[in-house]
Amino acid sequence: MTGRRINNSLQDHISVILVHPQNQENIGLVARAMKNTGFRSLRIVGVDQISDRAFAAAVHSGDILKQAELLPGLEEAVAGLQLIAAATAKFRKNYSLSSFDEAVDRVIAAPSGTRIGLLFGNERTGLTSEQLRFANFLFTIPQAGRQPSYNLASAVLLTLFRIAGDVQTMGSSVERERFIPREEQMECIRLILDKLKDRRFIHESNSEHVTEMVHSLFGRLEMTEKDRNLLLAIFSRGW
Amino acid sequence: MTGRRINNSLQDHISVILVHPQNQENIGLVARAMKNTGFRSLRIVGVDQISDRAFAAAVHSGDILKQAELLPGLEEAVAGLQLIAAATAKFRKNYSLSSFDEAVDRVIAAPSGTRIGLLFGNERTGLTSEQLRFANFLFTIPQAGRQPSYNLASAVLLTLFRIAGDVQTMGSSVERERFIPREEQMECIRLILDKLKDRRFIHESNSEHVTEMVHSLFGRLEMTEKDRNLLLAIFSRGW
Repeated sequence: MTGRRINNSLQDHISVILVHPQNQENIGLVARAMKNTGFRSLRIVGVDQISDRAFAAAVHSGDILKQAELLPGLEEAVAGLQLIAAATAKFRKNYSLSSFDEAVDRVIAAPSGTRIGLLFGNERTGLTSEQLRFANFLFTIPQAGRQPSYNLASAVLLTLFRIAGDVQTMGSSVERERFIPREEQMECIRLILDKLKDRRFIHESNSEHVTEMVHSLFGRLEMTEKDRNLLLAIFSRGW
Repeated sequence: MTGRRINNSLQDHISVILVHPQNQENIGLVARAMKNTGFRSLRIVGVDQISDRAFAAAVHSGDILKQAELLPGLEEAVAGLQLIAAATAKFRKNYSLSSFDEAVDRVIAAPSGTRIGLLFGNERTGLTSEQLRFANFLFTIPQAGRQPSYNLASAVLLTLFRIAGDVQTMGSSVERERFIPREEQMECIRLILDKLKDRRFIHESNSEHVTEMVHSLFGRLEMTEKDRNLLLAIFSRGW
């Protein structure tokens, strides 16, 4: 995926805010999910320190934990942010709920430079009604059944992955090989067909049928240069 | 998201296959990710038993662990499946790679009723070259940087979430020809390899390299009965 370049501008303006997380391992997994998806700013409410267990879970993502801001309350955590979206797995009587798609759209469609916070609650209790007030809107992540809800790090991961994916800021850890131009793919198939004719595999009475099947078979390969070289080597061989 | 109804038909035909997972907690988290996204069939290679740690992590998802199939090798794990997609975070010299979108599309676009396996390797090592041969194609999940890769349960979650999400919003695919079972696809590739050896196209010094390239090339075909017949006819011919 050489085509996709990294555009971190949106990620740079988004903070993940964990509210009273109780499990240090989850804090580490959240950092890893952020690193995976290109986010950097982590704010944590109600946690005095980040422990070794969090760092152990934050494989290659310790820098995010080191820079994380530990804050006493949500007032401090939302300071300076302009748009807050809160994830919830539960129905909230007095709040209307955005769908996941809608929430992602709202985050992405915010004016450029908007500082955004994504709020995730405690593993067991989620966000309290008091805490929800800090959010501009609530959203929920689609799931197949009522139970169980996503765990904390999973909810963060799915949200960040979707935001990053929709703005196409993520590349791939691996480079993909390009397909050769279609005309070159067809030239290769033509050479294969010639060989099959030379060897009387294709002859007058089956020609149309087999030619189409060979096109179908090798056409589907979405041929790379390497594929072509291998095929030509196989079929050029004087067997 | 009460509005979205779940259409489980595709989920019912997809198995998650974990190959030599080393961490029982990850097995539990995978079960939970499956439950969250509506999948049920879990096959695990190289694990003798599922421990209490896995069940503890599989909140409300113990039923998936109880029904999980523990299998000695990948041969048994792919038995009866027709299309195998393998997740990899690393570049694989002799294999071509699908993008995440493409891989999800291929899974969703498979003829209705196709039995599909999603292959995920060991946490530290990923899938070996030997193990990759069991797959029709490889895919990679987009990420922001080279390090770290997604952890096992995260890779499974992102893949299943995306498949489940796309299915809900898409109509039915047109009828397509079915793929033959993966073991028969591999048998066909083996016969091609034998022919290539007979003819000294493959010999001692290039064997591993060319064998993998042939697997990658013909594996990608998602072979139908018609494809196999054509390939066997082409390669069986005494040229």
